Amino acid sequence: MADLTLVLGGARSGKSRKAEALTLAAAGALPPVYIATAQAFDAEMAERIALHRAQRAGQGWVLREAPLDLAGVLAEAPAGAAVLVDCLTLWLSNHLLAGHDLEAEGQALRAALAAREGPVVLVSNEVGLGIVPENALARRFRDAAGRLNQDLAAQAGRVIFVAAGLPLFLKGGA
Amino acid sequence: MADLTLVLGGARSGKSRKAEALTLAAAGALPPVYIATAQAFDAEMAERIALHRAQRAGQGWVLREAPLDLAGVLAEAPAGAAVLVDCLTLWLSNHLLAGHDLEAEGQALRAALAAREGPVVLVSNEVGLGIVPENALARRFRDAAGRLNQDLAAQAGRVIFVAAGLPLFLKGGA
Amino acid sequence: MADLTLVLGGARSGKSRKAEALTLAAAGALPPVYIATAQAFDAEMAERIALHRAQRAGQGWVLREAPLDLAGVLAEAPAGAAVLVDCLTLWLSNHLLAGHDLEAEGQALRAALAAREGPVVLVSNEVGLGIVPENALARRFRDAAGRLNQDLAAQAGRVIFVAAGLPLFLKGGA
Repeated sequence: MADLTLVLGGARSGKSRKAEALTLAAAGALPPVYIATAQAFDAEMAERIALHRAQRAGQGWVLREAPLDLAGVLAEAPAGAAVLVDCLTLWLSNHLLAGHDLEAEGQALRAALAAREGPVVLVSNEVGLGIVPENALARRFRDAAGRLNQDLAAQAGRVIFVAAGLPLFLKGGA
Repeated sequence: MADLTLVLGGARSGKSRKAEALTLAAAGALPPVYIATAQAFDAEMAERIALHRAQRAGQGWVLREAPLDLAGVLAEAPAGAAVLVDCLTLWLSNHLLAGHDLEAEGQALRAALAAREGPVVLVSNEVGLGIVPENALARRFRDAAGRLNQDLAAQAGRVIFVAAGLPLFLKGGA
Repeated sequence: MADLTLVLGGARSGKSRKAEALTLAAAGALPPVYIATAQAFDAEMAERIALHRAQRAGQGWVLREAPLDLAGVLAEAPAGAAVLVDCLTLWLSNHLLAGHDLEAEGQALRAALAAREGPVVLVSNEVGLGIVPENALARRFRDAAGRLNQDLAAQAGRVIFVAAGLPLFLKGGA
């Protein structure tokens, strides 16, 4: 079963940088796998994603994309390789916009994580600490994201909340 | 004076489940009292509330409703019984929509809590960690909710922040 | 180099009160300097600011205003005096609305902090823990505020997150 770490945080909290450092520290002989879930909806985003890809590849990461089929991409990563998923919030949002069953997708993800061997670091946004959104879709998303974070935190051995680049350990040690 | 615990958290953070467990753990011989503050504005919400009621009653809770008169309902609960209030954010929102004086309502609540004997667990949302809302009523609510949380945290012996189902102790021990 | 403390928190979290207490505790023989960044856009806000000014002056603070030129005002404060900046979020927002380069302003601020002698306490809002704002300017602001908080947290010796008036130490001790 995967050695699972969940890194939670707000927008621009430094959670991705922290998660990258944790993944590299956990990586053994196999190159670490970076699974990006961002989907390019326009040229600006496509450019940002391409820039990210080039930076990561230069740092020795194996790059994979999983805007939707995260369970499948996790299953294909080499056994024992350290895997970073950045981020679950975009992945969930992609499924919401595609009209998929978010509960079923969450279950498939948890099964894929349970089946993996080696360290996995998941990045996820905490989105429930503001005022109730006026937009109904945003409310549905907020609920689904909160439930997913709870489920993955229960499955993880280590849960870290990042604020201003600094880690707070909610589960597991430093 | 009540043995007061404040459980803070975001939407779908697992704060209600944590608060229920704390209340049951603190309950003595008397059945625990569950005070719900949700108000049904439509059929869907009425159904959800009825379902919740049935679940709790089956688990041995005495059920009370306090969309507005929380101080009164707290005073009527048997002395020594463990009480759970879920949640203060809806209660405050009900008073805001009713046009009541939120400062006065907060004072009455704090007096009722000070007068109780036995454990009380309060659930409340943290709503001030997003961008300033464009809606003026939402801004007023956010300010009032933050002030209420501060006042109750000062009164409580234990304050717990819940994220992804995991507790972080802000005041008092585990 | 300044002995720097960053106090993060949500709206009405009690972060300003905590920061004031920390500044007063750190002040030596020189009177502490209170640098306010709020800008009055209407009569109501002008009145609130005037009230704040009068309260602080009565408590022995030297009052300074820095809606934009915070680096300059920091440089002018007496060497060794304890300084409180309340708050960075309004200051950043003032620069955003003025169309300034937020990255450059952040760098100038960090240089001014590095050049100071004596304790400095900075108050800043955490604004990235809600749903992605629909407003593009709000998204830009959220990103800039998160980056500023990360940069200042790296520079600070102590970082405190305040929720419901209670401190959580992210960096440095109690």
